[in-house]
This record gives sequence, structure tokens and C-alpha cells, in this order.
Amino acid sequence: MKDNKEIKYFDYTATTPVDEDVLNTYINTTKKFFANTTSLHLLGEEAKHMYDKCIDTIKDILGVKKHNLVFTSNATEANNLAIQGIAYKYEKGKIITTKAEHPSVYNTIKSLSDKYEVVYLDIDKNGCVDIEELKKELNSDTILVSIMWVNNILGTINDIKSIIQEVKKYPKCHLHVDCVQGLCKVIPDFDFNDIDLFTFSTHKLYGPKGIGGLFFKENIDLNKRLFGSNAQYSVKPGTLDVSLIAATAKCFMKFYPQTLEMKKIVEAKFRYLYDKLAKMDGIIINTPAFNISYYILNISIPAIKGETMVHMLEAKHIYVSTGSSCSSKLENIEKTIYALTNDKQRALTSIRISLSYLVLDSELDDLINEIQNIINR
Amino acid sequence: MKDNKEIKYFDYTATTPVDEDVLNTYINTTKKFFANTTSLHLLGEEAKHMYDKCIDTIKDILGVKKHNLVFTSNATEANNLAIQGIAYKYEKGKIITTKAEHPSVYNTIKSLSDKYEVVYLDIDKNGCVDIEELKKELNSDTILVSIMWVNNILGTINDIKSIIQEVKKYPKCHLHVDCVQGLCKVIPDFDFNDIDLFTFSTHKLYGPKGIGGLFFKENIDLNKRLFGSNAQYSVKPGTLDVSLIAATAKCFMKFYPQTLEMKKIVEAKFRYLYDKLAKMDGIIINTPAFNISYYILNISIPAIKGETMVHMLEAKHIYVSTGSSCSSKLENIEKTIYALTNDKQRALTSIRISLSYLVLDSELDDLINEIQNIINR
Repeated sequence: MKDNKEIKYFDYTATTPVDEDVLNTYINTTKKFFANTTSLHLLGEEAKHMYDKCIDTIKDILGVKKHNLVFTSNATEANNLAIQGIAYKYEKGKIITTKAEHPSVYNTIKSLSDKYEVVYLDIDKNGCVDIEELKKELNSDTILVSIMWVNNILGTINDIKSIIQEVKKYPKCHLHVDCVQGLCKVIPDFDFNDIDLFTFSTHKLYGPKGIGGLFFKENIDLNKRLFGSNAQYSVKPGTLDVSLIAATAKCFMKFYPQTLEMKKIVEAKFRYLYDKLAKMDGIIINTPAFNISYYILNISIPAIKGETMVHMLEAKHIYVSTGSSCSSKLENIEKTIYALTNDKQRALTSIRISLSYLVLDSELDDLINEIQNIINR
Repeated sequence: MKDNKEIKYFDYTATTPVDEDVLNTYINTTKKFFANTTSLHLLGEEAKHMYDKCIDTIKDILGVKKHNLVFTSNATEANNLAIQGIAYKYEKGKIITTKAEHPSVYNTIKSLSDKYEVVYLDIDKNGCVDIEELKKELNSDTILVSIMWVNNILGTINDIKSIIQEVKKYPKCHLHVDCVQGLCKVIPDFDFNDIDLFTFSTHKLYGPKGIGGLFFKENIDLNKRLFGSNAQYSVKPGTLDVSLIAATAKCFMKFYPQTLEMKKIVEAKFRYLYDKLAKMDGIIINTPAFNISYYILNISIPAIKGETMVHMLEAKHIYVSTGSSCSSKLENIEKTIYALTNDKQRALTSIRISLSYLVLDSELDDLINEIQNIINR
């Protein structure tokens, strides 16, 4: 919840405020189902039943029948358990990913590069993986392909349908898709049942932080990274938080059916913003025009460093980002914009404006006016 | 919160209901500090500042100055990151633990037994580690000793002060202490600053589930198990949940200073219960009389399986446990009671009654009467 009306928030890709209905679900579940799901007594059984119901609800909404769902503390952990869980099943093998993945995928795969052959695919001028490049790299040694659905810096949509088709040709190879920025934003043209492992984050869906999820096909025996109880298929043992799980189910129930409706609202806002900014001198639009979620408009203002721009806008209560918040304090250069443009200056001066159905038209105008003011200075 | 007055809950060791002040802290933080702590803008900075303040608060309360604190999804993850984080720094070495550890310690160390020399110490007739046994096993190859403060099945208190002294004699060796059942229950006679790594769980302290913590000395470079951002010293990367962290800080603020006061209340309840049960025929008391937290009374009723007893009491809205809820659905035999007694029947027929300052005298009488009724049948 974003109580302060002065705040003009355009960093919905980093995190969303918690929806009031979702928070109420959290609170009510905390009060009603406080027992430990592994306790043998009735209170434990009731909590376990609530947990099972939430799992079924989310799986029904996505139409996945033969996937297990495991809850983690965030999508970073979910991506780690997925990638390490597949890789460490094998002594060696090839892993294919891209130069534009989120740090939780990119760095996890980087950590495996001593033992495994790792290939980072380029992204093309549309900000997407070139399927021909993927085809060239795939071979019978490949154990894992990890490619995100929607890019978190550009909003570009990878052709997951074609990627599924190509990966399927290699029976040993598993496909992992980071769905964090796609779910509830883009209507998939693929079937989630065809993806071996995919991940999401509740706090990107107007839900609380502290919880992410990993779906994996039920016939996959992941290498175990954590040890304790046998909760969650022993993939993520320990006490479950039924309240955060119920809040997650509520997010799926409330927002997933609204994906198209929300997209239409956001697309209109995107187009309005795009048209205004495209007309300004001194702005380069990084987000391509096609195959995009419309939730992100990434621009560069070559005269001003991204970080400086963030602080100049913040002085007017306007909040944008320089890039993935998981990496924004790590590196000055935005690696996805660099992968797209091969232009360090453009990567250094990029800002990410991210949208939501919650953005008001007046807020958009304030943003546009302030960017114009800064450029005119 | 335990709204239903009919419920007579004696499973506080498995989990506690959330305190109302703590839940309000969670809710208020969710509303006021929704931004991502890694966002560069002011809202991100404010969330980060709140996070820093919570860390400082908790460290101040425990008096630890030179420890890092990392938040995880539960104590299971915290124990895993601690134990694996130390072990994998070394190619080989000796690891010493006990037969009575929580599954998240026991099974994590078991998973290391191919590569490392692992020793499981017995517990003595008082349910504690015998310091002489530890001394015999410690040597210059030892890289890790992991021993819990308070046992989660018996409530017995290990002599952490002496363990610290012995481990200190071996500079390469690290000491990890699972403090889950000790914090806010027992006044420590040792200094937390003398422990290399220790862990806790918020939902055992009248706080929400979904969060645990790992303290480790700031000069320890843990082997990294997860990859992504550099949040939390890269030990536990990914988006932080400031709401759960603030709720955790609130638990420490509200309950840690009350440790002695709560203990006095609980000890009186324990003694009342102990006296009544000790007089009944057909009951063996497993919890020793000395060096105990008073929060757990473990008994065996040799005529009735623990699981059956749990369900018989549940019919009267009385909720007890067979053992660690993290293992209760795993194995029929309670491994700590077996380690204590070397008696399978006693382990199979054990139940754990756990107490809190919240337990009412009338609830205790109901429990006592119902146990008597069941035995008399």
C-alpha cells in the first residue's frame, strides 16, 4: 500500500506495494492458522490443509497438473535451487543462458562455470534471444537452458514457445524459465506444462516480500541443496509460512485473471509516455517497439548518468530505477543495456521507468514534465 | 494469535501464535516501507535504513558487536548456510555434533559425511553433551562443532560456556550453536560474542513464520551457497522482507528483556504439571529434573503410542506433540528420546508438552485431568 499521495512511483519492476486484499489474507491466515503444518494434531492438519489448498489453487490457475510447487524466501533462492538442483545431478555438461538474465540466474550459472561448460547467448537488437543462436549451441551434452520470459530491464519478451520446441529435441536437457516479470503481465503463448522448471516472486504481484516459488515437473529429482525435514519434497525443508503462501495464492486469484485487462491499461500508459519521450531531444529509447510487456520503458539520457537522474527525479517525489534493484548497487554499468547496445555510455545513462495499473495519468504527466525540465536545464 | 478459547495449546516448541504488537509492526512496516531496499531512490534508502535499524536493535539486545546478521526463510536454512558455509571452506576435516540435534543440523551434517569425518556425540542421562566426550573428540583437524543450546525435545540446556572454552583451544575450529529453543527462554551464562555462528527462528518467539536468522563473526568468510545480488554479505542474496525483519526486531524488543520474568511464570507451571504427572501411575517423565528450560515436559506413557496420545488429547481440544515437528511425520521413533534412554518403546510412546507464559492454569488442569482419564481407561 502506497499511503502517501505525494509519491509518484515508477519502480514497480523492483517491487510492488502490497494489495489491501492480499494483506488481509495474510493477517487472517496468521490469526486462524498459526500451527506448524508438520504438527500431527488437528491444528497442524488444518494449517497443512490450508497450505495444500493454496498449492492447488495456484496450480489450477496456471493450469499445471504435473508440476510440484515449492515456496522459497524469494525468486533468487528459487532460481538457485532450480539451477543448482539440475546442474549437480550431473558430473559435467553444458549450460546455456543469456547475457541479459537476472543476477540470481546469471551469477548462479557463473558459479558453475568451473565444473560445467557455460555459454551466455547474446541478445539481439530486439532485446531477445535469437532462436538460431540457441539452436547452434544446443547439443546432446546440454543439461540446462535457462532463459527468462520477460526481461527485467527492457520488458522484452523472449520467444519461450520456440525455445520449448528446440530444447525438447534434446531429452537430457532441462528448460528453466525465470517468469518473475512475465506472470500477471503477459498472456503466455506457451503452455507452462512444457517448461521443466519455472520461478516467480510474490512481491512483484502486489504481494508481500519474503516468498518466491519454484515449479518443477514432478518426475524431476532435484539435487538437494538444503537438509532438514522432508517438507516441500526435501527441496526446501523447514517450517512453512502458511500466511505468506495464502497471500501468494490470493495474488494469483486476484491478479492472474486480470492479466489482459491490466495489460491494456498499462499499454495505453506506455504508449502515451513513449510518444512524449520519443519527441524529446536528448533521449534515446532503449526498450524496443515490439515483443514487449509494456510494463517497462527503458531510456538513456546521454548527458546524465542514470544514478544522477534517479536522484534528480527523487527530489520531485518521482521514483524510477537505474536497473535491476538486485544489481543496482553492484555495478555502475547496466549489463542488459550494454548487451543490447554494446555502448557503455548508453548503459551508464539508462533509467528504467516501470508501470502498473496503479499509475495515475497525472503521475505520468508529472514524470514527463520533470524529465523535460531536467533536459532543458 | 489464538482466537479460539476452546483451544488448549501445548505445542509452543513447534510454533507460537503471533503476538498482536508484532503483527501490527509487520502490517505498519508493510504499508510504510514497501520499496526494495536495493533501490537507489529515497524510498529504497528509507527501507534500507529501517532494515539497518532493525539489525542494530537486535545486535544491541544480544550485545553482539562483531557479528554479522543474515535473515533467512527459517532456522533450517540458517543452520544449513552456517554448517555448509563453514564445511565447504575446507577440503576435509572433522565435524562434531550430537545425536540429539534438530534435523536441520543433524541431516545437514549427515549430508557432509562422505567428504568429512563426522562424529555424533551421545547425550548423557541428563540429556546433555558430556564435555569430557567432546574433549576426547576435539583435535587439530576439527573444523566445526555444532551443538544446540536448548534441546527441542527435552528442554535440556547444554553447557555452552564450557563448550566455548574447549572449542577455543583449537583455533581452526568453529563453533555453531542452534539457539532456536534458548533465546527468550533461558538467561545465557555465556557471551554470544564467543560463539562463531548461531541461529534463531522468529516464529518460536511469538513472531511470524517465514524468517530465521544467522549470526556469524564478521571475520568469517562463509563459503557461498546462493548467488545473486550482494545483499546480506552475499550469504543470502535477493530481496529482503523489511516487514518480517521489523517483526523480528519487535519480538526481540518485546520478549528478550522479559526472559527471566517469563521463565518464572513458566517454571511455576512446569513444576505444577510435573508434580501432578509424576504422581500418576503409567507415566515416565523423560525431561530430567535439572539444567532445563522448563518450557518442555517430555513424558512417555508406555501403554500408548505417542501419535495415538496426540489424537486422543486432540479430541478434547488439547494439542501436544510427539517431538520435533520438523521430524514428526518422518519417523515414528523419537531419536532424542531414544538417544537418552536407548529404549525404543519409551521413544515410541513419548509426547512433548510445551509451555509458554500464555498457558492458563485452567488449561493445565484440563491437560492433567485428560491424561489421567486416558490412563484410567
